[in-house]
Amino acid sequence: MRRHNRTTLLRLLHVGGPSTRAALATELGLNRSTIKTLVDGLAEAGVVEERVPRPGRGAGRPSLLVLPQPHAAVVLAVDLQVEHVAMALVGLGGQILVRDSWHLRTPTRTADEVITHVIESTRVLAADLGVDPVAAGISVPGVVRRADGHVHEAPNLRWTDVALGERLGGVLRIPILVGNDAELGALAEHLRGVARGSSDAVYVSADVGVGGGVIAQGSSLSGGAGYFGEIGHMVIRPGGRPCYCGNSGCWETEIGEAALCRALGLPEGIARGAILVELRELARDPEAALERLAEFTEWLTLGLVNVVNLLGPQLVVLGDLLTVLPEAVIRVVAEEVRRRSLVSRAVGGTRIVSSVLGADVKLLGAAEVAFETVLDTV
Amino acid sequence: MRRHNRTTLLRLLHVGGPSTRAALATELGLNRSTIKTLVDGLAEAGVVEERVPRPGRGAGRPSLLVLPQPHAAVVLAVDLQVEHVAMALVGLGGQILVRDSWHLRTPTRTADEVITHVIESTRVLAADLGVDPVAAGISVPGVVRRADGHVHEAPNLRWTDVALGERLGGVLRIPILVGNDAELGALAEHLRGVARGSSDAVYVSADVGVGGGVIAQGSSLSGGAGYFGEIGHMVIRPGGRPCYCGNSGCWETEIGEAALCRALGLPEGIARGAILVELRELARDPEAALERLAEFTEWLTLGLVNVVNLLGPQLVVLGDLLTVLPEAVIRVVAEEVRRRSLVSRAVGGTRIVSSVLGADVKLLGAAEVAFETVLDTV
Repeated sequence: MRRHNRTTLLRLLHVGGPSTRAALATELGLNRSTIKTLVDGLAEAGVVEERVPRPGRGAGRPSLLVLPQPHAAVVLAVDLQVEHVAMALVGLGGQILVRDSWHLRTPTRTADEVITHVIESTRVLAADLGVDPVAAGISVPGVVRRADGHVHEAPNLRWTDVALGERLGGVLRIPILVGNDAELGALAEHLRGVARGSSDAVYVSADVGVGGGVIAQGSSLSGGAGYFGEIGHMVIRPGGRPCYCGNSGCWETEIGEAALCRALGLPEGIARGAILVELRELARDPEAALERLAEFTEWLTLGLVNVVNLLGPQLVVLGDLLTVLPEAVIRVVAEEVRRRSLVSRAVGGTRIVSSVLGADVKLLGAAEVAFETVLDTV
Repeated sequence: MRRHNRTTLLRLLHVGGPSTRAALATELGLNRSTIKTLVDGLAEAGVVEERVPRPGRGAGRPSLLVLPQPHAAVVLAVDLQVEHVAMALVGLGGQILVRDSWHLRTPTRTADEVITHVIESTRVLAADLGVDPVAAGISVPGVVRRADGHVHEAPNLRWTDVALGERLGGVLRIPILVGNDAELGALAEHLRGVARGSSDAVYVSADVGVGGGVIAQGSSLSGGAGYFGEIGHMVIRPGGRPCYCGNSGCWETEIGEAALCRALGLPEGIARGAILVELRELARDPEAALERLAEFTEWLTLGLVNVVNLLGPQLVVLGDLLTVLPEAVIRVVAEEVRRRSLVSRAVGGTRIVSSVLGADVKLLGAAEVAFETVLDTV
């Protein structure tokens, strides 16, 4: 029981940030002497520190703040993207302590090369920080099995059946948690972003691929047999462009990076920076933006109507390239989803907002799945 | 703690049926003396009975069977359909004890009329049985809010904003649990049908409307703000037939009863019996069935590919009219879903099966939501 309370308190500090003993007692429904025993134990172990807060306006003695100590538990987070790998060591409390990243050149992004590079880079980061990670979370743009970190298919990486969890774990000798990138994005937004406090939210991100993560009834939803669903391969345009997945007219083929390039009149495969420049330019003229992106807007709307009608979220968080769409486009999408979705009307209008965690969203989500497994052993 | 164990044991008997003390001890992880105390207490209260089982082949004294007593807790179950209302009193253990049903004539199916009739019929059923229900579950073909039984929109009934839970509860003076019909169908199949033991399953039913219910990670999923998602209003054919929901080309407009009539060359609105006769006839000639239902089969397939790609279930249960489709059609749908769905391939091939609970599926699901609230007070 005491171990359980300790873990719950630590999770609260880890996710919610510094807090007073009094606030912790209220939030956990424990009495102050129990909290004192727990905090004293954690302070003795170097996991938290108590500090006098900056003087406030109130009279009387200020309550001590309990702060999680970042170095007390460090996890490795890896965000494997189609053209880029980002890595970091993340400390208790969710702060990124050191980071590394490198580009993947198309012909050489084999699983072997990536695994070797991740292992080398982990050693360098741990040496820099002077702390070894106790677990790792890996974000993969594909269909993964949570139980053992098996990557079934990561089509945009051209990976099939890679025992990623096993291979990294065999060398690094720590628990390896592998998750679908959008699932981890949803987790990060739920714990640390705009979906904080939302019990039912969907995160939709468009990059080269399109993915989604679902928070249902307050927790992260994963699909059958530990595989997560692939929102990007919802058929939205029967008879549309063929998709590598075996279907045609998938949402991914209509709102992914390639589709956005087509809509903007840019060559497919152009550098990301050029897409962002074009979008920023376009944002200055809302009418032109709506006109040029009319078809893209319609496919984005249709897919979101389906997502909302199926899952009934109160909140949809848009990630990656969708965060840089002109504001006028997002406004039209939000209005149309509310107008056309029966379920959106029922929940009083699903809110559609952009991700606030920026480029680190999947890295932060990867760190959180790793923390989930270690907080009870800190 | 004892109250908790008692409820858990009762739930096990209610859902799993008669069992021996030894089996109950194993399943609950409790020692035999604790089980004895619990069973003795329940027997004394008349909630269970212990009985010598029919002689088996084994030697030695047979274990006593613990049987739930149906009359010890009776709930009201109401299945409100577009043209028909079915009602029953269901006893502990899930057995239908008495039932009633009546047809709704289109011009008179106002909420007032239905509520009045439900109340009258409840009194007659309770008098027949000699036991009053302690809670009620109501299945509604529409968007409902679980928390207070508010029906936001039941379009095929032409109901909008009906305080169904409040109005029935005000007169019957028992807890009223209102659920979406497909959500309750999923619950029934999960507890008592083909989805028993499946942690991730989706139930899809086509009647006048098309609905779906989701079992995720072993429990029933309900959407944002307590509203359940509407799978039937997933847009599957952009630019298709207009739907009353404000969209066009919804799945419901392509695989609902009207679409099936069109595919079979029957006039829309024809009696259900005539559709069944035609389908049975067609089932005798698989080739003709595949040909005549080719387009219907494709829309059914496409929608299921989306459902599987989004939710990643291991099992899809087809309900209502979909259970009477020719076997050849179901076989093609199952093959195509496996072929076209990335996620189905990942989970090792989603199984697609027909509901086994027949016409009572939603009645049984309605009874179960009612039982959920009363088992701890029996």
